[in-house]
Amino acid sequence: MINEKMYQLGSKRSTIREIFEYAKTRAAEIGADKVFDFSIGNPSVPAPKQVNDSILRIVNEMPSVALHGYTSAQGDKTVRDTIAANYTRRFGVPLCGDDLYMTCGAAASLTITFKALANVGDEFITFAPFFPEYGVFVATSGATLTVLKSDSKTMQPDFEALEQAISPKTKGVLINSPNNPSGVVYGVETMRRLTDLLKQKSAEYGAPIYLISDEPYRELVYDKETIVPCPMAYYDNTIVCYSYSKSLSMPGERIGYVAVNPKAADAKAVYAAVCGAGRALGFVCAPALFQRVAAECDGLTADLSVYKRNRDLLYNGLTECGFTCVYPDGAFYLFMKAAEEDAAAFCERAKKYELLLVNGADFGAPGWVRIAYCVQTDLIERALPLFKELAKEYNL
Amino acid sequence: MINEKMYQLGSKRSTIREIFEYAKTRAAEIGADKVFDFSIGNPSVPAPKQVNDSILRIVNEMPSVALHGYTSAQGDKTVRDTIAANYTRRFGVPLCGDDLYMTCGAAASLTITFKALANVGDEFITFAPFFPEYGVFVATSGATLTVLKSDSKTMQPDFEALEQAISPKTKGVLINSPNNPSGVVYGVETMRRLTDLLKQKSAEYGAPIYLISDEPYRELVYDKETIVPCPMAYYDNTIVCYSYSKSLSMPGERIGYVAVNPKAADAKAVYAAVCGAGRALGFVCAPALFQRVAAECDGLTADLSVYKRNRDLLYNGLTECGFTCVYPDGAFYLFMKAAEEDAAAFCERAKKYELLLVNGADFGAPGWVRIAYCVQTDLIERALPLFKELAKEYNL
Repeated sequence: MINEKMYQLGSKRSTIREIFEYAKTRAAEIGADKVFDFSIGNPSVPAPKQVNDSILRIVNEMPSVALHGYTSAQGDKTVRDTIAANYTRRFGVPLCGDDLYMTCGAAASLTITFKALANVGDEFITFAPFFPEYGVFVATSGATLTVLKSDSKTMQPDFEALEQAISPKTKGVLINSPNNPSGVVYGVETMRRLTDLLKQKSAEYGAPIYLISDEPYRELVYDKETIVPCPMAYYDNTIVCYSYSKSLSMPGERIGYVAVNPKAADAKAVYAAVCGAGRALGFVCAPALFQRVAAECDGLTADLSVYKRNRDLLYNGLTECGFTCVYPDGAFYLFMKAAEEDAAAFCERAKKYELLLVNGADFGAPGWVRIAYCVQTDLIERALPLFKELAKEYNL
Repeated sequence: MINEKMYQLGSKRSTIREIFEYAKTRAAEIGADKVFDFSIGNPSVPAPKQVNDSILRIVNEMPSVALHGYTSAQGDKTVRDTIAANYTRRFGVPLCGDDLYMTCGAAASLTITFKALANVGDEFITFAPFFPEYGVFVATSGATLTVLKSDSKTMQPDFEALEQAISPKTKGVLINSPNNPSGVVYGVETMRRLTDLLKQKSAEYGAPIYLISDEPYRELVYDKETIVPCPMAYYDNTIVCYSYSKSLSMPGERIGYVAVNPKAADAKAVYAAVCGAGRALGFVCAPALFQRVAAECDGLTADLSVYKRNRDLLYNGLTECGFTCVYPDGAFYLFMKAAEEDAAAFCERAKKYELLLVNGADFGAPGWVRIAYCVQTDLIERALPLFKELAKEYNL
């Protein structure tokens, strides 16, 4: 009687949530310090001090009706102008406030973008491993999501597979770099090959194939030599979906944006469709106070040194144990090969040591597990001897 | 190429927005004090002091990671429990936290509810005059919206029309009381007749017809004798869509809730579908800080005496001029009969006096105009002599 798909989506907890709930129960049984929950991608580092400073100053200074009133649907003009100017300064591509649409975070940025672009029957392409909610968000637009494999060592896109998969139905290609769950970054070489292919195919079909770049982890990279290329600098038909959730450690406040490259084909029409999709989905405007906080704190980050320390500790520790890991350039996830073919069985065995990992099959990558290292550093220190025990069971 | 419907929605400004923009241009030309903009339903009274007090205290007291982190998708448990307990105390119907789903305001509450309930081909029914975005929100769910007329004097539902319109395709009836744009309240008598009919028809078809009650103006009533009946007390299959935008004067912050009556048929499944729809549309969770502010300020209101003064001044002034007005029990809108058949022509003539009104045709009520009185009181005082001039033109 009610909508069955929505019922299914709402009643079936994600595997990650299941593990998270299990961790809470287990902690109550044996003590929180004995449970090693690596399941959830929740920032563990506080927001930079400027976030709360900004909230307090704005609330104390701005008149209530102006502060808490509606902003324009696309976001406060000063906020958009500020963020666009920063973007241009940081990445060297021209962007103005009228190319930006403020959203309630990355999920909203994505549902709005898919809905703006897609007609029923259209297709978006992404690469495994991938964030499984992409499938849900694409479905809302009436389009379908095709998932292609990546190179199993580098986790970079398989370009042959991509070339074969692109068809006149392909409305866009969705990338996520730094990647959840693999932690890899698509570097300059990948960006060049990818966008060259998209240019060639767009020309062949006489219609733009949009590059949708989901970038909540953009600032979360840990080595000097790691550069996250700005996709707009490589490809005109780019739409960036950004969120401040991870960079500013405030995922609960729901603030981000969609940026439509002004050089995109029919950029003004695409932007209008983004506004229309925001309206149709019920967003009205992004939260007003946090629009202003985001503009004031744009470009800042939480203390990333904690994540870097965690990454180094975990990557070095696990490879020393004999596990095969993808080197995580960024985000706060490490992707590790399960020590047996059945990753579910491997996760179950890890559970005996109270090590809670997420099966890579949930991200379209069977045989792998995801380890979220946005945790307290001492949890990793205490977990490593247990990983060593686990490795021994497999004679690694 | 892109989605044409979304492009249309995003590129065609609403009439209200057109007038709002015209007002700004006109103010620059002749001075802001000479333009009488009655177009926009933006609260003109500051948020109650407790809103900012609450923001400051929470930000100063809560650890950053807990405050700004994700809440559960349905909203923070303590927040939901608090609001549900208040609801039960205020309205005398049993509600618990697990019946509440926190949202990004009324628009989100509605898109989520329609999406949760509807299958393609289903129908929702509402009554003119009505908020025109309802059509947009229902369309997102794949259902259609049928608009029935109201009694032209009382603006209460036409029950004969409703009885004829309900069919096995009717998934729900949508009401909005106090009403935008008419300002009327559906009293006890209306609520009884409406819910009796819904009970009878639900029984006849063997399937629940949901009552969806859009209540952003619930607290905005001005006479002691005006009571806004709690629909859950009359009808089990009720879903309440609430927003704090108007009661707490913070429409920009986007916070509200969906409440599923625990006595509804398949209440748990309906609630799960609400959770699923929130997920599918990209909401993740409602803004975390403002969830907590809403819980602390639930039941408070901005200073409504300003709206009451405005309403009395405007209603008395306009009826004295000879205009026919619906007595506005609540919200902050007054619905007035245009003094000629063509309300558009009437609005144009009013414009000569710099009186900016909204054509009722935009709300499904041709021949009427909406006057939003959420303005500074002196604007009404200065406008009344101009309305008198306008009335003279029509020999009222």
